[in-house]
Amino acid sequence: MSGLRYTPLVARLPASVPFVGPETRERGRGRPFAARIGANESVFGPSPRAVAAMQAETTAIWRYGDPENHELRHALAAFHEIDPENIVIGEGIDGLLGYLARLLVGEGTPVVTSLGAYPTFNYHVTGYGGRLYTAPYKDDAEDPDALLALARRENAPLIYLANPDNPMGSWHNATVIQHLIDSIPEGSLLCLDEAYVEFAPEGTAPPIDASNPSVIRFRTFSKAYGMAGARIGYGIAEQNLVRSFDKVRNHFGVNRLAQAGALAALNDQAYLGEVKMRVAAARTRIAAIAVDNGLRSLPSATNFVTIDCGHDQAYAQAVLNGLIERDLFLRMPFVSPQNRCIRVSAGTDHDLDLLAEALPSVLATIARSTTPKP
Amino acid sequence: MSGLRYTPLVARLPASVPFVGPETRERGRGRPFAARIGANESVFGPSPRAVAAMQAETTAIWRYGDPENHELRHALAAFHEIDPENIVIGEGIDGLLGYLARLLVGEGTPVVTSLGAYPTFNYHVTGYGGRLYTAPYKDDAEDPDALLALARRENAPLIYLANPDNPMGSWHNATVIQHLIDSIPEGSLLCLDEAYVEFAPEGTAPPIDASNPSVIRFRTFSKAYGMAGARIGYGIAEQNLVRSFDKVRNHFGVNRLAQAGALAALNDQAYLGEVKMRVAAARTRIAAIAVDNGLRSLPSATNFVTIDCGHDQAYAQAVLNGLIERDLFLRMPFVSPQNRCIRVSAGTDHDLDLLAEALPSVLATIARSTTPKP
Repeated sequence: MSGLRYTPLVARLPASVPFVGPETRERGRGRPFAARIGANESVFGPSPRAVAAMQAETTAIWRYGDPENHELRHALAAFHEIDPENIVIGEGIDGLLGYLARLLVGEGTPVVTSLGAYPTFNYHVTGYGGRLYTAPYKDDAEDPDALLALARRENAPLIYLANPDNPMGSWHNATVIQHLIDSIPEGSLLCLDEAYVEFAPEGTAPPIDASNPSVIRFRTFSKAYGMAGARIGYGIAEQNLVRSFDKVRNHFGVNRLAQAGALAALNDQAYLGEVKMRVAAARTRIAAIAVDNGLRSLPSATNFVTIDCGHDQAYAQAVLNGLIERDLFLRMPFVSPQNRCIRVSAGTDHDLDLLAEALPSVLATIARSTTPKP
Repeated sequence: MSGLRYTPLVARLPASVPFVGPETRERGRGRPFAARIGANESVFGPSPRAVAAMQAETTAIWRYGDPENHELRHALAAFHEIDPENIVIGEGIDGLLGYLARLLVGEGTPVVTSLGAYPTFNYHVTGYGGRLYTAPYKDDAEDPDALLALARRENAPLIYLANPDNPMGSWHNATVIQHLIDSIPEGSLLCLDEAYVEFAPEGTAPPIDASNPSVIRFRTFSKAYGMAGARIGYGIAEQNLVRSFDKVRNHFGVNRLAQAGALAALNDQAYLGEVKMRVAAARTRIAAIAVDNGLRSLPSATNFVTIDCGHDQAYAQAVLNGLIERDLFLRMPFVSPQNRCIRVSAGTDHDLDLLAEALPSVLATIARSTTPKP
């Protein structure tokens, strides 16, 4: 009856949601989670300076934010020792991935990513009519050579790789990534998602060369800076590409408090250092909990640890469900063979106490239910 | 050299900006404005309850916002006496207009609006390849009959009208708007932008019929609720259309503080009432300043007043420039004949004192410079 004339592309798109939020699950369950360690948010929160900056800015919320994000762009430029003209600020990496897809992806455009990599990238590519080509993970890591071969075969203008990777927490060193950048075919673009790079060992991120038209690097205030709810991230790229975002972006789209908070967070690198230490400690603890339960954890360069449950998807799903029933919000990888794992964000001591307490009982329950009756 | 393979549409889009922000102008001038009364922001700010809610939420900013905007959607549903399924929340009306254009506009899609109406709508339509058809204003108001005739002629799937109007401040009563809604051709959609409707007289907005597939109504927390920098607004529409936004929207795109602030602002209707009174007083004052200077002000149902400078575009531009030189941030309509006017947002008493002080001197300076020498 409504019969609105949606575009042919929209008419065939599913109303898909890349992720179900924890609040949605809580409403479905009818009770809150006791630990929120499923979305790789930073439970350690933002810098107190960022909190203070946002609080101070609330009385100025009647003003639109600066559409040029001037102050933050200049601060980031100084921080990375590049020009402000090489930086585009947007509504989180999610928002920027949407703009990037819009710039480069039309009906049938081939786009290359890893099978099981970030679903929101796929959501945007599909949303603009792109055709996804996926390379499998290799040893639980994205496979640069396979991605490159696929991109060459399909003549893809856009290639996605996250380093470190989500959902496995694996990473490549700077030499491997630089080699990938250097091998991107002329006229193609590597979308290098570095959302978790602050947590990675030295030598993970290659030096930034903002004049290179073959790569755009995305960073965010959502993870290490603890501001996921603020929706602010940035891309570093060659100037022509940065300017192209001005053709399509929502110029006044960044929240004013996010601008103020991000600036203050960036200027508190000491706090970032503390967060990194606490995340490292939490990773160690999660790995220990895994071992205590006879499970293997994967090495991680992120603020989460992926635990190999040692069996198939159904088993990992049962573990996840058991933990969720015990009020722990967690997620797991979407595709095989990664989905033999569950993924645990770096939690507070209390969060991880709850995990340590719940996991043995979950595993025991599964063991009881699957042991053949005598 | 970069040679990235932008879509054909993007390749031909200009890197346009719907509006230059006041901060950009301040940087260009090298000094700040003394009064910020050019972007129809609410100088009276948000409810203190909204400020408190945002401040309290800053420590939870490490969490992504609820992608379903559940609480706010339900509160708005209760407020408007409709179902939550008829409400889509987004990153301000600007963000929602972008999503709407994406749903309905492809290469060459005809879209109808008024000549000189909201440029950000045009930005989005053009950005998705749409072809704009414009009807002129009639008596400084948008002309529903002309829009309708144009939509019929061009078989346009999307028609834009703001009521009250920006930049003129004019409005139609509910009967006229309801007649327009009832006349929208089957399969077409009226995008009814009601960003300023809280400031309008009773009887401006027709009753909400959320089951009507011919209209989507946009409201915002940016204007009367004083939260322009928060980037949060909503659309009210038939359920299928609301669900369609889930195909394309940035699900985690709304800032968590904005969600909390909007909810608190909505729940403080007493404060909204105060703002409306202060805006009404400011409108009266702006009109009086115009009269004191021999100019005519237009009636307004918004938080701004459009002043007819009585001559052509060049004259109005000179007045605007003079005021800007005297540190008042103002804007003016973009096209003829509306651009014989300047537009003044409802300011504080101090803001309007500055206007009252500056305007005579600006007009005198122009008069001196244009009087033929003897």
